[in-house]
Amino acid sequence: MAQIFDRVALIGLGLIASSMAHASRAHGLAGEIVGTARSAETRETARELGFCDRVVDTAAEAVKGADLVVLCVPVGVMGAIAREIAPHLKPGAVLSDVGSTKRAVIEAVGPHVPEGVHFIPAHPMAGTEQSGPRSGFAELFENRWLLMTPGDADKGALAKYRAYWEGMGANIEEMEPDHHDLVCAVTSHVPHLIAYTMVGVADDLRRVTDNEVVKFSAAGFRDFTRIAASDPTMWRDVFLTNKDATLEILGRFTEELYALQRAIRQGDGDHLHEYFTRTRAIRRGIIEAGQDTDAPNFGRGR
Amino acid sequence: MAQIFDRVALIGLGLIASSMAHASRAHGLAGEIVGTARSAETRETARELGFCDRVVDTAAEAVKGADLVVLCVPVGVMGAIAREIAPHLKPGAVLSDVGSTKRAVIEAVGPHVPEGVHFIPAHPMAGTEQSGPRSGFAELFENRWLLMTPGDADKGALAKYRAYWEGMGANIEEMEPDHHDLVCAVTSHVPHLIAYTMVGVADDLRRVTDNEVVKFSAAGFRDFTRIAASDPTMWRDVFLTNKDATLEILGRFTEELYALQRAIRQGDGDHLHEYFTRTRAIRRGIIEAGQDTDAPNFGRGR
Repeated sequence: MAQIFDRVALIGLGLIASSMAHASRAHGLAGEIVGTARSAETRETARELGFCDRVVDTAAEAVKGADLVVLCVPVGVMGAIAREIAPHLKPGAVLSDVGSTKRAVIEAVGPHVPEGVHFIPAHPMAGTEQSGPRSGFAELFENRWLLMTPGDADKGALAKYRAYWEGMGANIEEMEPDHHDLVCAVTSHVPHLIAYTMVGVADDLRRVTDNEVVKFSAAGFRDFTRIAASDPTMWRDVFLTNKDATLEILGRFTEELYALQRAIRQGDGDHLHEYFTRTRAIRRGIIEAGQDTDAPNFGRGR
Repeated sequence: MAQIFDRVALIGLGLIASSMAHASRAHGLAGEIVGTARSAETRETARELGFCDRVVDTAAEAVKGADLVVLCVPVGVMGAIAREIAPHLKPGAVLSDVGSTKRAVIEAVGPHVPEGVHFIPAHPMAGTEQSGPRSGFAELFENRWLLMTPGDADKGALAKYRAYWEGMGANIEEMEPDHHDLVCAVTSHVPHLIAYTMVGVADDLRRVTDNEVVKFSAAGFRDFTRIAASDPTMWRDVFLTNKDATLEILGRFTEELYALQRAIRQGDGDHLHEYFTRTRAIRRGIIEAGQDTDAPNFGRGR
């Protein structure tokens, strides 16, 4: 693959940024990769692992001369970082982010973007429950979706940035920020909140000891704990910055849950059976769309 | 491994029974395996696959002369089958089941158990989202828990039945039926109900098309759909027969979810962060207990 950007600056060096660095290098997409993180420990780890060409101490320093700057930090701090780096951005550079919500990022970062810098918000729908600079790997984005909310961004800059993500293996879809936030509330944010809640309930339950919950976590709860093991700061910011869509979907969820609860209380087996039958079809669609494996139990133990 | 039962009868030939047949044969635990199922199609498939030595047309015929009879049917029909087979059970035989709830099975089956037959209810905490005679495999129970609620069952019969499951690789824990039902409500039943609900919400949401939900089902929703793809009849019966524990845990779940919902509405980031941090520890425990892999994303795609 041909080189697309001469210098890429990654601000924040967690799972996504370290995977971007690995992937950029694997596919020869960047002349130089410069990284930085707020924590000295993270910077030290990144230097050790060597996935960046240079690791520098400040965001301002990192973005100097960079053709692409990507904010890979929790959504809640993106505004402050944008303000900090704004005076140092190279004219003509692409500025992007990898935040899980887009309306809030646009509101926080947008006002700081200097004239001549191309702001193209993006959201790679990829990740694992692990976090930090050691968790990245080059294949993370392969055949995963990158959602972009480019608005009226410059066509040339957009084409370049699209080529960069395509080079890392992603499929790209453009949409409006509010629509993005609703889609993600359904497919990701509310499922995560629910998983966190269920794990919290188990943890609270004194009559069933922690030990038993852990011991007997067959399929079901076990999968919830995986989801609920994701980075707490990232998820806090997701919910604080996608409040409206999250609360709307939560309202629908609660409504449906109450209907099922009433069916259980009233012994309405037909209602339950019909509901459970309907949900099978969606699973089938996901497998057919290539978004998951159809191996039983995700291929665990077989 | 030495043969433990001369003749084992499996009533119902789905995922669990077919896995028991494969495992019994792999470890030489049964002299003869006789199977039956209500559906002629299932019996035909089982004959084709050949995991039983004989497939017969009725439960009454299957249990004749069997030293171990295991009910592998949805909990809702166990009472009727117990009544049907009772006159044909061999004196001294062990009668068991693999139902996901235990209080209801004991109430439905118990009254039909003839004098001299040893009733030992059991629940293998193993499974995949797949069902039917083609889905079984010999390793399903390896290093998984079998929960038993033997009450005051005959010691000799209990020892034999334990040896049978240990032969298939299971770890065994004995407990009281009500405690079993509560533990399973937390670790399995309510998580499944919630997954079903979330998938139903997504299906209902017209503004986010089915296509988008399927397309962008990143980690989170994707895992929910897997859980929600399980057998509808089995799960209907689980909820109808574990009503009290399910409703209790659902009540706690709703309470916690409302607290998180309020924190989101009020922008209380500390509450969210603290909650999400606490849930990480349980995940760690499950990996340490060997109940799941710590490979990111269950080892998908890496």
